[in-house]
Amino acid sequence: MSALAPVVDTRQAARPSTYAGPSTPPSPYLELSVPVAVEHYRSLAAALPGTAVHYAVKANPEPALLRALHEAGSSFDVASPAEVLAALAAGAAPDELVYSNPVKRRSDIAFAARHGVRLFVVDSPEETVKVAAAAPGSAVLCRLVTSGEGSDWPLSRKYGCSTGEAVRILVAAAALGLEPAGVSFHVGSQQRDPEAWGPPIAAAARVFDELRAEGLRPWLLDLGGGFPARLADDGAAGCPPLAEYGAAIDRHLTRAFGPTGPDRPRTLVEPGRGIVAEAGLLHSRVLAVIDRGGTRWVFLDAGVFTGLVETIEEAIRYPVTTSRDRDGGPRVPCVLAGPTCDSADVLYEQAMVHLPADLAEGDWVRLESAGAYTSCYSTVGFNGFPPLPTLLRA
Amino acid sequence: MSALAPVVDTRQAARPSTYAGPSTPPSPYLELSVPVAVEHYRSLAAALPGTAVHYAVKANPEPALLRALHEAGSSFDVASPAEVLAALAAGAAPDELVYSNPVKRRSDIAFAARHGVRLFVVDSPEETVKVAAAAPGSAVLCRLVTSGEGSDWPLSRKYGCSTGEAVRILVAAAALGLEPAGVSFHVGSQQRDPEAWGPPIAAAARVFDELRAEGLRPWLLDLGGGFPARLADDGAAGCPPLAEYGAAIDRHLTRAFGPTGPDRPRTLVEPGRGIVAEAGLLHSRVLAVIDRGGTRWVFLDAGVFTGLVETIEEAIRYPVTTSRDRDGGPRVPCVLAGPTCDSADVLYEQAMVHLPADLAEGDWVRLESAGAYTSCYSTVGFNGFPPLPTLLRA
Repeated sequence: MSALAPVVDTRQAARPSTYAGPSTPPSPYLELSVPVAVEHYRSLAAALPGTAVHYAVKANPEPALLRALHEAGSSFDVASPAEVLAALAAGAAPDELVYSNPVKRRSDIAFAARHGVRLFVVDSPEETVKVAAAAPGSAVLCRLVTSGEGSDWPLSRKYGCSTGEAVRILVAAAALGLEPAGVSFHVGSQQRDPEAWGPPIAAAARVFDELRAEGLRPWLLDLGGGFPARLADDGAAGCPPLAEYGAAIDRHLTRAFGPTGPDRPRTLVEPGRGIVAEAGLLHSRVLAVIDRGGTRWVFLDAGVFTGLVETIEEAIRYPVTTSRDRDGGPRVPCVLAGPTCDSADVLYEQAMVHLPADLAEGDWVRLESAGAYTSCYSTVGFNGFPPLPTLLRA
Repeated sequence: MSALAPVVDTRQAARPSTYAGPSTPPSPYLELSVPVAVEHYRSLAAALPGTAVHYAVKANPEPALLRALHEAGSSFDVASPAEVLAALAAGAAPDELVYSNPVKRRSDIAFAARHGVRLFVVDSPEETVKVAAAAPGSAVLCRLVTSGEGSDWPLSRKYGCSTGEAVRILVAAAALGLEPAGVSFHVGSQQRDPEAWGPPIAAAARVFDELRAEGLRPWLLDLGGGFPARLADDGAAGCPPLAEYGAAIDRHLTRAFGPTGPDRPRTLVEPGRGIVAEAGLLHSRVLAVIDRGGTRWVFLDAGVFTGLVETIEEAIRYPVTTSRDRDGGPRVPCVLAGPTCDSADVLYEQAMVHLPADLAEGDWVRLESAGAYTSCYSTVGFNGFPPLPTLLRA
């Protein structure tokens, strides 16, 4: 490989700092309220008494957010060396981290172990062997597959194994010198049905029973994330309140493991969207309002490549407000599109958004519940449009 | 907005420079051969004699690539202030640029005009008014809508107007003091059918006729991009050779505008993928090979969020080679997945990839024809995985 020149960072050339003047505020940008995220953390912790809350750093790794969540008592869910460092930099102790990525680079496992992380998720014999080699003696959770039913962004295909496989993996883990801590699962992101936790909790209890029959002592159940944010397609009733999620989960835990006692595992959750989504407001401005054969297209300066990846297939529907909103003003259906030349840079077309009839170039369009999976999903600057910046609300 | 703190760049915290040791080579990375891209430029220019080639910077804005293409005689297709600066920094003169984004921020138009750009694409009356105000006296091309048929990544929905609208827009442009230069269209990215240029060239000729009847003198036809790269699903015959594209385009131009003479417009093309895709080889390593209920999953350290966005819906199928390839070795169908915890980070699942049966952790997997729409599509570091770096092959 000596013929290769040093790494060239194309972003430096594509986004020279000279062209964007010091406009205040810039556009687009993500306005992030750390106190609102902390409030969501506290609500979730209150709805799940006795369950440790591990904020999923991937949803939004903003350092000020991580620090505030740590100070409020949150632990962290991490999935890469950079996320380990971000959590530690926020003040977390290594034993407050769960490394939840079920398939990891071997050197990344070793990196985490060197930094004191000792709880890893696996979902295959191959990965268990890797963890045993790279982080000897650490604790493992085995991830179960779930259906993803009821969620807007299902997770079912890529990760997880059956209960039978989980038993074999955790027994093998013990033989490899690892601590078979228990089981994890994930019911899918933006999960609208609190009862979705029932089947995987019951499945986890079967794994725990079989492990105990093998003489092992599992003690930890990772209930995953999936707690929803308020979105545009919630319907009149909205998503169920967090208390309903807490009650459903407690009921299913009691049914599966008993109300108290040594058989009831310690529990943790890994919320990302449920904590940070509603703390974020994505501000963008209208580039143009154009009639395309009778359909009104509103072009924004934010799009799929500046963070709005979750609009692909129109999966996540952000509530939209504008600087032209007023009571009783007429609204018309609009397609929302982003600023790049890419045809995929269209936010909502199948189900159009109803916006003020007098919306015009330069007006602000704001996407609510946009604090999760936006700034972190932004491209490095596709088509010369800079990544979505974050501004902190005091 | 004074309550907002200064812009916080979350990428700095998410990707501290301390964790990634100076490994050589890193993984994943894009190996880019500038000479191969220049060779593709020359082939395309030779296949289209008399047509100006404007490389589409969005496909890959690597500075060394832009410099070499400029030196070889290429002009540029740009769509944002950053791309204007990148093209100028490569040595291009402002009149070698076409600003092809049909919907632009008003201040971006003015920025380009200040830097000497004077050819802009529009596709609506609204945008024409903006260009007249922000870049007075400049030349405009009006983009026609096309069907996108025959392409892997069609572009039909978002941009373009009918021939009747184009005539009205260009007549209005003249009245606003702009120069109605002509028409542009785009047949869709990775266009496999050279005949796809026929209908829009004929449509452009109708627009030219009507403009002349109005006393205007259009002179430029932008034939767009769409020239294909070699991909895995080309079939036994592969895509047609460039000469066939050139011959088909010339035949359609002759049919629509005559063989020579004052009615035949000057022409330009805007290739991106056709120039740079085959110059790029994306190197990644296997994190794990895992059996998921009888299906073999190969997890790579490159994925949708490190540049492989065009695998969404499995639209673009990169040819795959591995460090285990050998003649006659057994191959098995595999799902290819990326390294992040995101369920969307799966490259090929519906149509699996046949890989060596003994492929194992640490082996190299290489995606060919990956020089376009990869490094520029990379996220800022989702889940803590750094953007795809580029290494230049000497």
